[in-house]
Amino acid sequence: MAKIGIIGSGSWGMALSVLLYNNGHEVAVWSALPDEIKEMEQTHRHHTLPELILPEDMVFTQDLEEAMTGKDLLVTAVPSVYVRSTAKRMNPFCRYGQVVVNVAKGIEETTLMTLSEILEEELPMADVAVLSGPSHAEEVSKGLPTTCVAGASTRKTAEYIQSIFMSEVFRVYTSPDIQGIELGGSLKNVIALAAGIADGLGYGDNTKAALITRGIAEISRLGTAMGGKIQTFGGLSGIGDLIVTCASMHSRNRRAGILMGQGKSMEEATKEVKMVVEGIYSAKAALALSEKYEVSMPIVEQVNAVLFDGKSASEAVRDLMLRDKTIESSDIPWE
Amino acid sequence: MAKIGIIGSGSWGMALSVLLYNNGHEVAVWSALPDEIKEMEQTHRHHTLPELILPEDMVFTQDLEEAMTGKDLLVTAVPSVYVRSTAKRMNPFCRYGQVVVNVAKGIEETTLMTLSEILEEELPMADVAVLSGPSHAEEVSKGLPTTCVAGASTRKTAEYIQSIFMSEVFRVYTSPDIQGIELGGSLKNVIALAAGIADGLGYGDNTKAALITRGIAEISRLGTAMGGKIQTFGGLSGIGDLIVTCASMHSRNRRAGILMGQGKSMEEATKEVKMVVEGIYSAKAALALSEKYEVSMPIVEQVNAVLFDGKSASEAVRDLMLRDKTIESSDIPWE
Repeated sequence: MAKIGIIGSGSWGMALSVLLYNNGHEVAVWSALPDEIKEMEQTHRHHTLPELILPEDMVFTQDLEEAMTGKDLLVTAVPSVYVRSTAKRMNPFCRYGQVVVNVAKGIEETTLMTLSEILEEELPMADVAVLSGPSHAEEVSKGLPTTCVAGASTRKTAEYIQSIFMSEVFRVYTSPDIQGIELGGSLKNVIALAAGIADGLGYGDNTKAALITRGIAEISRLGTAMGGKIQTFGGLSGIGDLIVTCASMHSRNRRAGILMGQGKSMEEATKEVKMVVEGIYSAKAALALSEKYEVSMPIVEQVNAVLFDGKSASEAVRDLMLRDKTIESSDIPWE
Repeated sequence: MAKIGIIGSGSWGMALSVLLYNNGHEVAVWSALPDEIKEMEQTHRHHTLPELILPEDMVFTQDLEEAMTGKDLLVTAVPSVYVRSTAKRMNPFCRYGQVVVNVAKGIEETTLMTLSEILEEELPMADVAVLSGPSHAEEVSKGLPTTCVAGASTRKTAEYIQSIFMSEVFRVYTSPDIQGIELGGSLKNVIALAAGIADGLGYGDNTKAALITRGIAEISRLGTAMGGKIQTFGGLSGIGDLIVTCASMHSRNRRAGILMGQGKSMEEATKEVKMVVEGIYSAKAALALSEKYEVSMPIVEQVNAVLFDGKSASEAVRDLMLRDKTIESSDIPWE
């Protein structure tokens, strides 16, 4: 049994809270929003996961010190834009060697840093790790079989996280490649936008499989240039997470893409989806990173052209199909 | 413009015939079935692709010599069980250096050989190549954007095939890895069965993405032991084709799997699907290959246990989830 603090009470944080509780751990959940704490304390429910029942002895608190003190493991599950500010607030209560597992996904727009890089900068005393994979919170909260990968700087920490999270319905693999794990999760939404656009244009499964496969090829090229390992992009946090995002009817990125494929502008599509479409920000970040690291990312380029230059979606697809004839993997030699 | 002979008039052969015709090539289609030839000559339609109209000046013949003589390129598109017998019949008419592009998928049950290995054995004078990728024939016949990879022993042959097939709606990449391309396509149906079983059990997108991702990991382990290149399994003929097969509502393998997930036996499921369920044969072949090459394939093992040993599907999933805790990729070192 471990003592665990969950920092952030979105749907993913809450699904993991209950998973960890069911694994026999003591769980305290922190949120910056007083209303959210009150709601959970009073109803033992969370509005984003209406079927999930929160256990009577789960602690809910607005006090970061309470959520962090004496914990064996902290899970950071705040939206990517709040990671730096939350980490700054966590700093005074963070002990040396504290294991902090980031489960949020994203890239900071101004610095192009990953979330674990931000955590390491703001919490230099912590042992920062990540957990990622194809894992809709709704399905995890229903106990449907799910797999993830835990990335940490040492094998010992990775195996510790594995032992904490693993259950009959939640299988955890370990990996040393924190950077590769984070980049896969952060960049997937650009490709999900492209997959949505293809759906909106009325294209089929062949087109979508092509976008996913060539999409992960682009992400791998960039990710390895940034220090990630190629194997990771073929794993659960890479292709696995990309598959689940592009298949989901619930993904806002895909939904916004569908509207753009049907001819709406980026502004019209985001207005209709009524929520933050992360892929729009990651599209910008991915393009900036591809330029910084001099990596070719044709799908990312076309998505940016559709989003920001008013290019028509069908023309973008046509340009992708008719690019220079090329080999599939530049690193397999002909004999 | 090239002269092309299509050997085999199933849905994939016919979708490619029309694609190649539309690219400006002269196309002759051979079938062993007189009724099929008669139907196509008289109606200019094919029963498997009712919307596809076959051009007036496309040649249909039962005469292998006519289909093969003077051709720049031959496409073999016969069902895998007929590849050896058809190749034997092709032998007398095959000229030295004839480019033969195999587009069928499968492994010979008795010899565990791939189809291009069979073609090379039976047509030693030919330049055997392959074309594979996420490509439902129905979608290609409707002109929906599709990508494939052409594998050949020389770059020149691969680029020749690329130039013949590529169009605004059909993008072709090249690769030297014939073996890897063939193995991905041949082994995918076992994983599609597993994905169907998970659907039948009522599991969600997380589970399916896990099966696809860990499935391609198994296929890669076996495939590289057999001489394929790791990159290929992350490409269009590997993960790409696997994604499209596991997503498709039309896949018989997935349909049979769904029935087994719902509790039916293999015999009941195949009776209800009423067609050959290739995954059942490939499951056997994959297991035999995993033993021959001493490669761990846990999903393949569990599928075999469900198919042939009467193991319940839910028990098989449970055993997959609770196997020994492990690392994701054994070849990334901790520092």
